[in-house]
Amino acid sequence: MVKASLTGSIIGNMLLVMGLSFFLGGLKFSEQKFNRTAARSSVTTLLLAAIALVIPTVFHLVAAEVPVSQGGWTPQKEQNLSLGIAFVLIGTYIATLLFSLKTHKQLFIGGSHAEAADAADGASGHAETAHVGWSKGKSIGVLLVATIFVALMSEFLVGSVEDARQKLGLTEVFVGVIVVAIIGNAAEHSSAIFAAMKNKMDLSIGIAIGSSVQIALFVAPVLVFASYAFGKPMDLEFSIPEIAAVMLSVAIAAQIAGDGESNWLEGVQLLAVYVVLGILFFFLPEVHHVATTK
Amino acid sequence: MVKASLTGSIIGNMLLVMGLSFFLGGLKFSEQKFNRTAARSSVTTLLLAAIALVIPTVFHLVAAEVPVSQGGWTPQKEQNLSLGIAFVLIGTYIATLLFSLKTHKQLFIGGSHAEAADAADGASGHAETAHVGWSKGKSIGVLLVATIFVALMSEFLVGSVEDARQKLGLTEVFVGVIVVAIIGNAAEHSSAIFAAMKNKMDLSIGIAIGSSVQIALFVAPVLVFASYAFGKPMDLEFSIPEIAAVMLSVAIAAQIAGDGESNWLEGVQLLAVYVVLGILFFFLPEVHHVATTK
Amino acid sequence: MVKASLTGSIIGNMLLVMGLSFFLGGLKFSEQKFNRTAARSSVTTLLLAAIALVIPTVFHLVAAEVPVSQGGWTPQKEQNLSLGIAFVLIGTYIATLLFSLKTHKQLFIGGSHAEAADAADGASGHAETAHVGWSKGKSIGVLLVATIFVALMSEFLVGSVEDARQKLGLTEVFVGVIVVAIIGNAAEHSSAIFAAMKNKMDLSIGIAIGSSVQIALFVAPVLVFASYAFGKPMDLEFSIPEIAAVMLSVAIAAQIAGDGESNWLEGVQLLAVYVVLGILFFFLPEVHHVATTK
Repeated sequence: MVKASLTGSIIGNMLLVMGLSFFLGGLKFSEQKFNRTAARSSVTTLLLAAIALVIPTVFHLVAAEVPVSQGGWTPQKEQNLSLGIAFVLIGTYIATLLFSLKTHKQLFIGGSHAEAADAADGASGHAETAHVGWSKGKSIGVLLVATIFVALMSEFLVGSVEDARQKLGLTEVFVGVIVVAIIGNAAEHSSAIFAAMKNKMDLSIGIAIGSSVQIALFVAPVLVFASYAFGKPMDLEFSIPEIAAVMLSVAIAAQIAGDGESNWLEGVQLLAVYVVLGILFFFLPEVHHVATTK
Repeated sequence: MVKASLTGSIIGNMLLVMGLSFFLGGLKFSEQKFNRTAARSSVTTLLLAAIALVIPTVFHLVAAEVPVSQGGWTPQKEQNLSLGIAFVLIGTYIATLLFSLKTHKQLFIGGSHAEAADAADGASGHAETAHVGWSKGKSIGVLLVATIFVALMSEFLVGSVEDARQKLGLTEVFVGVIVVAIIGNAAEHSSAIFAAMKNKMDLSIGIAIGSSVQIALFVAPVLVFASYAFGKPMDLEFSIPEIAAVMLSVAIAAQIAGDGESNWLEGVQLLAVYVVLGILFFFLPEVHHVATTK
Repeated sequence: MVKASLTGSIIGNMLLVMGLSFFLGGLKFSEQKFNRTAARSSVTTLLLAAIALVIPTVFHLVAAEVPVSQGGWTPQKEQNLSLGIAFVLIGTYIATLLFSLKTHKQLFIGGSHAEAADAADGASGHAETAHVGWSKGKSIGVLLVATIFVALMSEFLVGSVEDARQKLGLTEVFVGVIVVAIIGNAAEHSSAIFAAMKNKMDLSIGIAIGSSVQIALFVAPVLVFASYAFGKPMDLEFSIPEIAAVMLSVAIAAQIAGDGESNWLEGVQLLAVYVVLGILFFFLPEVHHVATTK
């Protein structure tokens, strides 16, 4: 259920959190502006992550058609491929941190710098501080701790929902992608929505897209590295519905966040995609691997 | 042939109508401007529709690999999934109407408001009035009537072209996607092109993309609801070439309409994609369902 | 290996050349601007090319499921489909030349016209002249000669790397997509990078994306036409990893070049996608055709 939770967190932050933020913010403000360069940059990173997560599945689909003696698919190759991709992801993540915390930090503070000072109270205060004032080292440390905490909490959640899941007849993949993701990201939800309702869109988008970026570029590769430490190598191969969900979510997020302005309809559009994906995962039987696996 | 006509109308308006408008408008005006926010909003709605139409096919491809006893694919599930998606589409459509006719109607009238008054004659007058002056109720009523009319006309067309089709050796899917769509959307074609040649790009794009939006978000779900009333439930599962055509059309429309300006080359590019898709459907044998169906 | 070289040149110019240009240029200049309309136009042309290259594979996948007696897949049909698409591509290429050399040439010279004069020396001088001063006829002539030269050079390269390839245990597709593409495009690499480091982004992007456009819209169809002259018709059907690579490259290039500004992180993002695709092709066994081919 780990991979399903990763997928769910990525699409949940992009669609549900950003959708609710744009919708509720848009009900108060006719048009909301944000820094286009920063938003596009984050979405590009997510697109890179989505590409990276598609590749192991493309590899499986193609290589599974070839006998092993001629270089066909083996679990070992899938793991090596995934390990290589994990290094690219974590490398890009470090570059992203350098960019947003050092060389181009002004983009991410933007015009809302002045207001940021007097908004240090309230639900958004914690997240805002993270973006504005923390050192790189502290940010990374907090990220690591938060990651472990989220992983533990997710496991805890999974345990406590297992009974309910079976009684309700829900599949593991639905619970992983939808239920755990909603509960596990409750903090991001409230912070991002409160920020949007205060018209602090850079902060709101930073939390929503930033959370997806962290999960795809930091949590996913760290899980791969950790899996080697525990002697049970994990690959980055996701099921076809999962990669479809991630790719389509990035596509609509790119379309919506690419012009530096938002309104309530864009929120509805993001939420509609989330509901459509929720319907898919609700009806989907338990399939954890690509179709051609035997 | 109903689904093929839906596909054909969606891609026909986006590629052929918008392509001809940009091309012929661009021959007269070196660069044409339009309201970027309105255009992006419509394209986003189309992207949402394309995502919604991809999902039933993804469901089929994955769920068909699983035995029915373990939650595998059944026609019943496909219909329920499609019904859920139809509700999301019609809900988003209502939100889109609220947005374009009520909360943000100024975006869709734009700077061309003044000229709109003295342009109430000519081919574009009818469509312009629809966007500017009609009440929500009247608009919806006209839409309903127009939809039924188009459906009847399409059926009539299909009947009258059937003989010609067999003599020419064309497949049903080619006639549905290309021929019926061209003839069935002749009114949109002329209105949108005349508007573009008068440099009224907001109106031209409103007609072209707006027609695609109406078909995907209004006609398609209404057909699903109606199919239940007639006791022959219809699902929203399209063939792989159809969803490829819709997704690729939305991708190029998003790329072209995303910056608020057009030129003749963009018209050529849209038309080129339309011709390429036409070639595909010309060579394609009669396959109405996804590849794995037995 | 011809098709693998085409794929490699398209993605190499878009990802490696543009990535290095943005990265190295971005290290010197915090933010670099370029003409958004010109860049979007080139990317749109690439998207059209990517769509055109996807279609023969979609055709194969779907038509291979149908018996030949009912209109199923035959090599003849695939060639006819490819020939039709080749005509669309070359027609669009001619339109693109008209646009960039005649009707809208000011977009491609842009604000950098003045500086262009005093920059006629150095590594970028050659390429710059091509864009600014050459007549259409001369440009086309040079293109033709350059194309034949590149083709010959690629063949020569392929011959000389064949021994090394087998000793290193690399697959043909990896060598074609990655190694030959890097060496074969060395000239574009240095010109584009030097231009970016002089903050001449319009020129740099013109070389990088322009080279991809030339290969996809000019070299690929010319190879198809030439193959008929030699009596060994070639189709435009690429393997699934190849079309995935091209589509995903265009997607990230569209996202990055769509806003008319670049920074070093965008370079890193393009390079990261290139490395991820390199890892895929490194692990991929020799598969030249789509999965369902028997």
